[in-house]
Amino acid sequence: MALKGNALFAQSGGPTAVINSSIAGAITEAQKHKDITNMYGSINGVLGVLNENFIDLNKESKKNIELLSVTPSSALGSSRHKLKNAEDFDKLLNVLKAHNIRYFFVAGGNDSMDTANKVHELAVKEKYELRVMGLPKTVDNDLPVTDHCPGYGSVARWLALAVRDAGLDTEAIYTSDTIKVIETMGRNAGWITASTALARQRDNDAPHLILLPEIPFNQDKFITEVEKVYSKLGYVVITCCEGLKDENGEYLTASKRNIDMDKFGHKQLGGVGETLVSIIAEKLKIKARCDKPGTIQRVSGIAQSSTDRAEAYLSGTMAVKHAVEGKSGYMVTLVREANEPYKCGTGLSELVNIANKERKVPKEFIAASGTWVTKEFLKYVTPLIGGSLPEYARLEKHFIAKILSK
Amino acid sequence: MALKGNALFAQSGGPTAVINSSIAGAITEAQKHKDITNMYGSINGVLGVLNENFIDLNKESKKNIELLSVTPSSALGSSRHKLKNAEDFDKLLNVLKAHNIRYFFVAGGNDSMDTANKVHELAVKEKYELRVMGLPKTVDNDLPVTDHCPGYGSVARWLALAVRDAGLDTEAIYTSDTIKVIETMGRNAGWITASTALARQRDNDAPHLILLPEIPFNQDKFITEVEKVYSKLGYVVITCCEGLKDENGEYLTASKRNIDMDKFGHKQLGGVGETLVSIIAEKLKIKARCDKPGTIQRVSGIAQSSTDRAEAYLSGTMAVKHAVEGKSGYMVTLVREANEPYKCGTGLSELVNIANKERKVPKEFIAASGTWVTKEFLKYVTPLIGGSLPEYARLEKHFIAKILSK
Repeated sequence: MALKGNALFAQSGGPTAVINSSIAGAITEAQKHKDITNMYGSINGVLGVLNENFIDLNKESKKNIELLSVTPSSALGSSRHKLKNAEDFDKLLNVLKAHNIRYFFVAGGNDSMDTANKVHELAVKEKYELRVMGLPKTVDNDLPVTDHCPGYGSVARWLALAVRDAGLDTEAIYTSDTIKVIETMGRNAGWITASTALARQRDNDAPHLILLPEIPFNQDKFITEVEKVYSKLGYVVITCCEGLKDENGEYLTASKRNIDMDKFGHKQLGGVGETLVSIIAEKLKIKARCDKPGTIQRVSGIAQSSTDRAEAYLSGTMAVKHAVEGKSGYMVTLVREANEPYKCGTGLSELVNIANKERKVPKEFIAASGTWVTKEFLKYVTPLIGGSLPEYARLEKHFIAKILSK
Repeated sequence: MALKGNALFAQSGGPTAVINSSIAGAITEAQKHKDITNMYGSINGVLGVLNENFIDLNKESKKNIELLSVTPSSALGSSRHKLKNAEDFDKLLNVLKAHNIRYFFVAGGNDSMDTANKVHELAVKEKYELRVMGLPKTVDNDLPVTDHCPGYGSVARWLALAVRDAGLDTEAIYTSDTIKVIETMGRNAGWITASTALARQRDNDAPHLILLPEIPFNQDKFITEVEKVYSKLGYVVITCCEGLKDENGEYLTASKRNIDMDKFGHKQLGGVGETLVSIIAEKLKIKARCDKPGTIQRVSGIAQSSTDRAEAYLSGTMAVKHAVEGKSGYMVTLVREANEPYKCGTGLSELVNIANKERKVPKEFIAASGTWVTKEFLKYVTPLIGGSLPEYARLEKHFIAKILSK
């Protein structure tokens, strides 16, 4: 099964906090194999392949490769470029041939796995011996087969920290800023929004309502739920997914500008939080404000989950190991072997099982209310964020007797 | 100068990452003075005083008081309540008298210092011996006299980290998400937005344009500046202040809902980032997106600046020391004694010098372009964020020769 040649590494789709760790794992493993002659990095995913924009990874310092693991975003550059037709794929394969690329490692999401799969199939068809391996990556956590996706644990940690802090903020200043809506990423799947439940450490902690795209938004129900929390606590913190849909399956808010459509036909979302703020102002006459951290949530170095980093690295390592063994057309998956204590290994799944498929939050992870998660979900997500949140003071608040207003 | 009685601690205005550290410093110092009998915390600032909602701080555990220093937001609860008239002030003083409060410590911004000053003046007038001391607090950094304000160093650190990460994100995925606008807090003063300059560690790093409220927004100039960066790098990261104003001094974007007006007549701002995104889409036909972290930026535990925390604590300590010595009607100020190495002490300023005054970013801190800061500003702000940002990999990118497209 020995195959001598060069290896090409590419990063694709939205950056994450650990996609560089995946590549660091792959590069470090590749260095151990004599069959892999040169190691190239493709600049900006498949665009770099089409344009032969390759950098020599052997010329990067050892320190730089090590630092990759703790460096967020995509150090090689990324893209959402979709190969249009057979001509594009032919061109791509010709570039791989010209540079004697025999190992092609693609870190990405479901769109990227589709591209990787097509390259794999074309190489098979053309009898060009090529080992194509996918490294799972997406903050959205919406890839099928794999237990979870590298990138998700870190965005979940970031949101657990941020929503806890922003929740304490509302709890403190609720007499003037009464309701807060925090809009998270997550197109059609609510995994990211669901992870905000980790911010709650005690009863009544934020968030109070979690709005997932899996549950159609109903304005009347929403207002009733908000009122319920408000009358109990005097303030409300709501987390919502940017991809929230109404009962007709339409996005609650999506850009109407054509320019905001990506190459895969996905609309730029965002604005749901402000829409909820308007609804609250109109229906309840209560002041609300919206925090929309946007891309900041997905590429935080400081909130990187150590578990996520290690698993991303492992997925890179295993991708190279399997490729050297002779595998092609697979994505490395994460396999949860045990939960207490948490233990995660890897598996393989054919790229065709991953390509263009989306895994939503399943019913058993969503509470009956539709606005919170289940204990099963908390068990699922807790180990992914790399340890508990820092401890905070929570005053016991022993009130003294009133004198004047007895 | 000995004055025996109880001490009351209150937090006011928007929460920060270190306002609890200010209170922790004050409480810990107060415990050392026998003249201070009981220590009460007022729940929700002056509202707690008016309603006699006091908690007994002596009953809080030592651990809780210690943890306060690393706990963001306002643990006692805050408010933006404005005392309306003489009757309100009389009521407040009567409560202080009823509980034998002789020491009143208020952590807050310019509105709060105005309230504190009026309480001080009323007590003097009524010959009720009361020591009123202000503890500086505001992420906006817009208090006069003091070199800087506790709270600012932490929001600056948060933004330095977040803008660096979000900048790397755009640098990676610019072929699909080309322009990013990050909207920061800061009503009329651009201190917070200016601090995003700390994210830039190498030439061409984000942010590329910094839009301060001190510089009137001109759409044509803005488009020209964006185009300039875009044609050089292929992508642009812009940071802007929520309080951006046009050449007529009008806020570029402010809520039109009356409900969003606070008790001091301040409008709820926000939306400037989305306005810029629209302008870019319309004029340049380039896709832009907006991150608006909102309150998350001001209350981050994880990005708390150790310098900021220590200075907040010190301001609390000194407020109590001065009060016990006999001072009243002052705010503790931070005095920069040296910059290399950075050394910061404290001073005192009469509350009347602080009340309702706003310090904007001075001309010498704004670059001639109007869209960047000066070296002097960087010297000013760098020591406040408590150490350098974590090191990241930055690939050297040695390109290999093209073969097919030579």
